[in-house]
Amino acid sequence: MDPNFDAGQPTLQDKAREFVERETVKNTILGVIIFNAVTLGMSTSDTITAQIGPALKVIDEVVLAIFVAELALKFFAYGLRGFFSNAWNIFDLVVVCLGLLPDRGGLSALRGLRVIRAMRLLSVVPQMRAVVQALLDALPGMGAVIIMLSIVYYVFAVMATLMYGPNFDEWFGTLGRSLYSLFQIMTLESWSMGIVRPVMKVYPYAWAFFVPFIVITAFSVLNLFIGLLVNTMQAAVEADEQAEFENLRSLVKSETDIVDQRVIEMTAEIKAMRREIAELKGLVK
Amino acid sequence: MDPNFDAGQPTLQDKAREFVERETVKNTILGVIIFNAVTLGMSTSDTITAQIGPALKVIDEVVLAIFVAELALKFFAYGLRGFFSNAWNIFDLVVVCLGLLPDRGGLSALRGLRVIRAMRLLSVVPQMRAVVQALLDALPGMGAVIIMLSIVYYVFAVMATLMYGPNFDEWFGTLGRSLYSLFQIMTLESWSMGIVRPVMKVYPYAWAFFVPFIVITAFSVLNLFIGLLVNTMQAAVEADEQAEFENLRSLVKSETDIVDQRVIEMTAEIKAMRREIAELKGLVK
Amino acid sequence: MDPNFDAGQPTLQDKAREFVERETVKNTILGVIIFNAVTLGMSTSDTITAQIGPALKVIDEVVLAIFVAELALKFFAYGLRGFFSNAWNIFDLVVVCLGLLPDRGGLSALRGLRVIRAMRLLSVVPQMRAVVQALLDALPGMGAVIIMLSIVYYVFAVMATLMYGPNFDEWFGTLGRSLYSLFQIMTLESWSMGIVRPVMKVYPYAWAFFVPFIVITAFSVLNLFIGLLVNTMQAAVEADEQAEFENLRSLVKSETDIVDQRVIEMTAEIKAMRREIAELKGLVK
Amino acid sequence: MDPNFDAGQPTLQDKAREFVERETVKNTILGVIIFNAVTLGMSTSDTITAQIGPALKVIDEVVLAIFVAELALKFFAYGLRGFFSNAWNIFDLVVVCLGLLPDRGGLSALRGLRVIRAMRLLSVVPQMRAVVQALLDALPGMGAVIIMLSIVYYVFAVMATLMYGPNFDEWFGTLGRSLYSLFQIMTLESWSMGIVRPVMKVYPYAWAFFVPFIVITAFSVLNLFIGLLVNTMQAAVEADEQAEFENLRSLVKSETDIVDQRVIEMTAEIKAMRREIAELKGLVK
Repeated sequence: MDPNFDAGQPTLQDKAREFVERETVKNTILGVIIFNAVTLGMSTSDTITAQIGPALKVIDEVVLAIFVAELALKFFAYGLRGFFSNAWNIFDLVVVCLGLLPDRGGLSALRGLRVIRAMRLLSVVPQMRAVVQALLDALPGMGAVIIMLSIVYYVFAVMATLMYGPNFDEWFGTLGRSLYSLFQIMTLESWSMGIVRPVMKVYPYAWAFFVPFIVITAFSVLNLFIGLLVNTMQAAVEADEQAEFENLRSLVKSETDIVDQRVIEMTAEIKAMRREIAELKGLVK
Repeated sequence: MDPNFDAGQPTLQDKAREFVERETVKNTILGVIIFNAVTLGMSTSDTITAQIGPALKVIDEVVLAIFVAELALKFFAYGLRGFFSNAWNIFDLVVVCLGLLPDRGGLSALRGLRVIRAMRLLSVVPQMRAVVQALLDALPGMGAVIIMLSIVYYVFAVMATLMYGPNFDEWFGTLGRSLYSLFQIMTLESWSMGIVRPVMKVYPYAWAFFVPFIVITAFSVLNLFIGLLVNTMQAAVEADEQAEFENLRSLVKSETDIVDQRVIEMTAEIKAMRREIAELKGLVK
Repeated sequence: MDPNFDAGQPTLQDKAREFVERETVKNTILGVIIFNAVTLGMSTSDTITAQIGPALKVIDEVVLAIFVAELALKFFAYGLRGFFSNAWNIFDLVVVCLGLLPDRGGLSALRGLRVIRAMRLLSVVPQMRAVVQALLDALPGMGAVIIMLSIVYYVFAVMATLMYGPNFDEWFGTLGRSLYSLFQIMTLESWSMGIVRPVMKVYPYAWAFFVPFIVITAFSVLNLFIGLLVNTMQAAVEADEQAEFENLRSLVKSETDIVDQRVIEMTAEIKAMRREIAELKGLVK
Repeated sequence: MDPNFDAGQPTLQDKAREFVERETVKNTILGVIIFNAVTLGMSTSDTITAQIGPALKVIDEVVLAIFVAELALKFFAYGLRGFFSNAWNIFDLVVVCLGLLPDRGGLSALRGLRVIRAMRLLSVVPQMRAVVQALLDALPGMGAVIIMLSIVYYVFAVMATLMYGPNFDEWFGTLGRSLYSLFQIMTLESWSMGIVRPVMKVYPYAWAFFVPFIVITAFSVLNLFIGLLVNTMQAAVEADEQAEFENLRSLVKSETDIVDQRVIEMTAEIKAMRREIAELKGLVK
């Protein structure tokens, strides 16, 4: 970064790396995240905001400054490639940047996005990283079924828009609305009383569209779930069986070794005997 | 099809087969399907239709022509029997024919059915075929429970129609309406607030009909699911165990072979010794 | 039953038994059940009833007569004990008796119960019997959790009646109503918008009662399901492992038998040798 | 407790312990609990209360006195440490104490809490204890996912309060209301028709907040469930495999023992032969 300083034995970069990887630094950051999560929670209360609102705002800015400083230090310590090669750093970067967004009039909704910062708990605590990792690891195995489900979903959404859009603009007026309504129907929320029965008032055969949709998506989600479960279980069972096989291998080895040992001794015995017979032959000659 | 042309070495039929099975042809068809899926999606938007509606219509007709040509070629290439022996061809045929349906006034709802064409993605991509195949393969194992569920379902629907039909025409007026309402109740959508509580206003003991129905169907679906899961898992575990058994077989074989080898050597030793004793006997005599 | 006729070689009772167990008789009964299921379904339609209503009624009475005759014959064939030792006979008896109930004014609701007769499909087809048996077999393993769930359920129902009954008579006015409402809440149907939010208008802390109820029952049902699944799977896996163990046993046996065989041959060799040495000794002496 | 009485061979404390652990005492307490559960249920009925209300009240107080006496005796029998070392005693203590709460005007809601006493059934019957224990044992394995879910949940609740609170006070006005509403959305109850569609009238992109929330929580709960299932199953399978391994061990042992035995015999044979050769050598010399 700055070659002028690159003279001492441990470079400034090394020192920075050593600093951000220190346990106390990590725990301090963790403490700041939890503290910030609490103050963010407090800022949702009107009574608390009325009393210590400005203080909460200052705390929030200080915390943001700490996070920015930490990220800058990490960036300096690991360099461009090192920093971005760790997906969690990218997560942290995005999450912190959301806090730098302007906080003005029309964008008050964006204010809420700052809170995502508290999700850094997931990236800082190793156990949490492991859980998230496990969840993400489950995704690829579900790839093919998810793509199939997406195709079915898209086709049904286009059909619903073309068929029911003209009469039910709020639910199926555009492709986006149809996708949302079909997601609602897939979760079975008010699918019949709320949507399909009113639609059937106009199109009496609408059930022939929606009931198969429900059955197909429910069956696909079920298979997704079964696939996931069988994969997880098989991995667990395979590890078990590997261990059992090792046990068996050592058992069989030790048992045959006993026999083997005896056979070796016996062979020695026989060889000795043969030598004696050879001697005997010498004597007789 | 046309014996007059059946003269050259590779017949026209062979050439057609070779053509439709070429990778580039398949990928072109796949591209056309995806392109058509997008244009069909675009045709749901009023603003897009207002601008390039006629163009979308032309594209749709060109795509349809391509699909019809592809199917005709396949039909020619594989012959009547060959074509229909592949279930995916039948799927393609049905799906393409839906696009040939008239697109007039009262049948505007049928227009939507053209979109099913995009489902050809499932029949063209081999991985998707495999997923659909896996879903269909799961069905037979569920046969007995599905039949049982259908009987229970039918009996409850007839009962509901006879008992509640006279007072609740919209929900239980006909056998069809009862089947639909019971399907809704099975999915637990608004079953109580929407249907059973109003029915209980007239028939106070209606809960004794609907609660058992919910419990029975929920329990049956659960068992369906468990059966499916156990089958899938057992297949996976069996493959595992087969592999483990092969490992064990080779382990036991190699271990006993060591002992066996030693015993063979020893036997040779003993035989040699016996020969020597025989010689010795000769000398003594 | 009637000792006067009990004279011929195969008694009348034996003949009756042989008759009811004949395949053709069973299939005829099965056909009558299916036919009756269809006519019962047709009787739900007003237009069909208007045209052939009397005919349907006659058919129904004929079918009922056939069923009564069949049951009477079975009763005669197997005797009191033999008849009631088969749970399916009791099921048939109950189901047929429901059709003998009076069909008058105020009891029109009872008319619907006749339809349960179609459930005899479950008792007549052996595969269906097996499915129902499998479902029932799953129950005992769930006993303890079901009892626990019932206790929790009862306690919450009494509490809800005492706490919310005075203000929400329709939902929690009596123990029965509370049980029904809690069942609805357990199925998650309109639990919040329909019931808990209105209750929270009067008792702001009602969530502290209902949310734990939902979590506890959901978690218990989950465990019920897991227990069921693990039992089913374990049974399947155990059978597999038994087979695998048999394979291993024969593998180990055959492998060690090879070694064993060689050792036996070698022992014979050695014994022969020893005899020769004894001869040799005789010669030397 | 009272050293003056601590003189006889079995102290008063020992006698008390022997008494509370007697089967008849336990069964009596169990009977009292069940009886009380029934009378508490009866007290929910206005007609029954009108007739025998005072009697029910007296019964309740007698039962409470019995429970207090039982707890006091246990406390005396096991001492401070012994009593609190058993979690079920603490459960009983809390549950009985709820019955000692004042039963006055404004606190009529607390009256309902007395009924929790019937839950003592869970602590008195050993089988029920085992089921509850099994449910609680399942919790630690779910720890990491539950913490992760809580963080996600908290972050979404704070965001919802900040973003939608100002316009939807009833649902997202405070952090508590947001947590409740998000729990409702997680259970999928009226999430779309009841909450998200109205919110989308004001914030058209609200679906981008709620749909990911539903997908994330559903996927997490699914993983929670899969984790639980795999753990339970693995424990069951491991026990099976341990037994199978023992079988295999004894099989391999017995098989190799046969070979071993023969080899031992053969070795003896060879040794005898060697002795004879030595004799022979002596003769020849």
